[in-house]
Amino acid sequence: MSDFQTIQQALRRFTDERDWAQFHSPKNLAMALAGETGELVANFQWLTEAQSAAPDAATKQAIREEIADVQMYLLLLADKLDIDVAQAVAEKMEMNARKYPAPEFSGSARKYDRPAD
Amino acid sequence: MSDFQTIQQALRRFTDERDWAQFHSPKNLAMALAGETGELVANFQWLTEAQSAAPDAATKQAIREEIADVQMYLLLLADKLDIDVAQAVAEKMEMNARKYPAPEFSGSARKYDRPAD
Amino acid sequence: MSDFQTIQQALRRFTDERDWAQFHSPKNLAMALAGETGELVANFQWLTEAQSAAPDAATKQAIREEIADVQMYLLLLADKLDIDVAQAVAEKMEMNARKYPAPEFSGSARKYDRPAD
Amino acid sequence: MSDFQTIQQALRRFTDERDWAQFHSPKNLAMALAGETGELVANFQWLTEAQSAAPDAATKQAIREEIADVQMYLLLLADKLDIDVAQAVAEKMEMNARKYPAPEFSGSARKYDRPAD
Repeated sequence: MSDFQTIQQALRRFTDERDWAQFHSPKNLAMALAGETGELVANFQWLTEAQSAAPDAATKQAIREEIADVQMYLLLLADKLDIDVAQAVAEKMEMNARKYPAPEFSGSARKYDRPAD
Repeated sequence: MSDFQTIQQALRRFTDERDWAQFHSPKNLAMALAGETGELVANFQWLTEAQSAAPDAATKQAIREEIADVQMYLLLLADKLDIDVAQAVAEKMEMNARKYPAPEFSGSARKYDRPAD
Repeated sequence: MSDFQTIQQALRRFTDERDWAQFHSPKNLAMALAGETGELVANFQWLTEAQSAAPDAATKQAIREEIADVQMYLLLLADKLDIDVAQAVAEKMEMNARKYPAPEFSGSARKYDRPAD
Repeated sequence: MSDFQTIQQALRRFTDERDWAQFHSPKNLAMALAGETGELVANFQWLTEAQSAAPDAATKQAIREEIADVQMYLLLLADKLDIDVAQAVAEKMEMNARKYPAPEFSGSARKYDRPAD
């Protein structure tokens, strides 16, 4: 079983044991994902780019937990909508490879405005 | 190799072929993640909760692509900071299990204010 | 003096007294805005639409404070970039009026996908 | 009439003319705000902090429009919940002044982790 499926199975069990599925409409899960992303971003807001690459231990632990939260809500959402995340990523990477051919877009910040729209 | 590692390896290759690593500070990746999360949420904003569980084909495809984008930036960010996402999720789920014991929090929206802080 | 200018002047004084201008690049302020928006959204994530129209007193106070935070970072950001928010809103409303002519878009959720892009 | 009230009155008229109030639950407006904030942040994601202080004309216009969008949804949301934004900001600034006394927090990035929580 894949990472994604293992986590989704564990999340389903966790949710069922607490009878929380009633709150987990895709709309609500997308909002929860946005909330957790906000907390993740907040950890970086006053750091320089260089500092962000080497956060102190407490900040790194906070980032680690927020990454986990974002990952969990993303998989709960995908699960609800029967979206296979591994396959969706593979397809999106193929689209991106066609949209941003390697030689043309090499090292270009200007063209790399919206990398993965 | 796990799903996460497979995707991270593919993303590293994609990034290197375009010389884009120079833009990928954790700070910038966190911002890109926030931007993609915003696009994901926008797909749900005028849907009712019931509608969000059964989006039409075009909306579902848009959601699928945004989920892929969020997943990719999350794994790029975790990779840069050497954070093992599968392990981070496992640890967070243990913390949540202690924080929200199943009988006490069963079916409670009031207590389930901030499920995964 | 307008509301916007009054608040911006107060924020400038607050920032200067603490020597915080050094942290207030537009990039950082946009991130801080995203963080506060995440906190604002989190207050609504498990409420139904109907519940969201009549939050309890504690939730309403939390929402009120987050609205203030979002407003402050938005005005700090606009101030840094010399953007006149009142004028920017007036211009955007004219663009929206042309983009969504009243009879044609009346009551339409389908067309009202992306109201203010 | 204040800036905020002038804009809120114009937004109410715009909404009524299109019969869009039916979509404007506070929950939905908070999501729309999050979507627009995501678009705003995306304009800064690949810029350095220095670049973000002097965006080119096209980027600045895009930022200006997104700032207007965020401002409009924030005022629509506050209007729905009968929250006086000018007063909420004044109260929050007083709270912040007590929380971050000027001499103690002067120039401190470390203490200025979460400026306006």
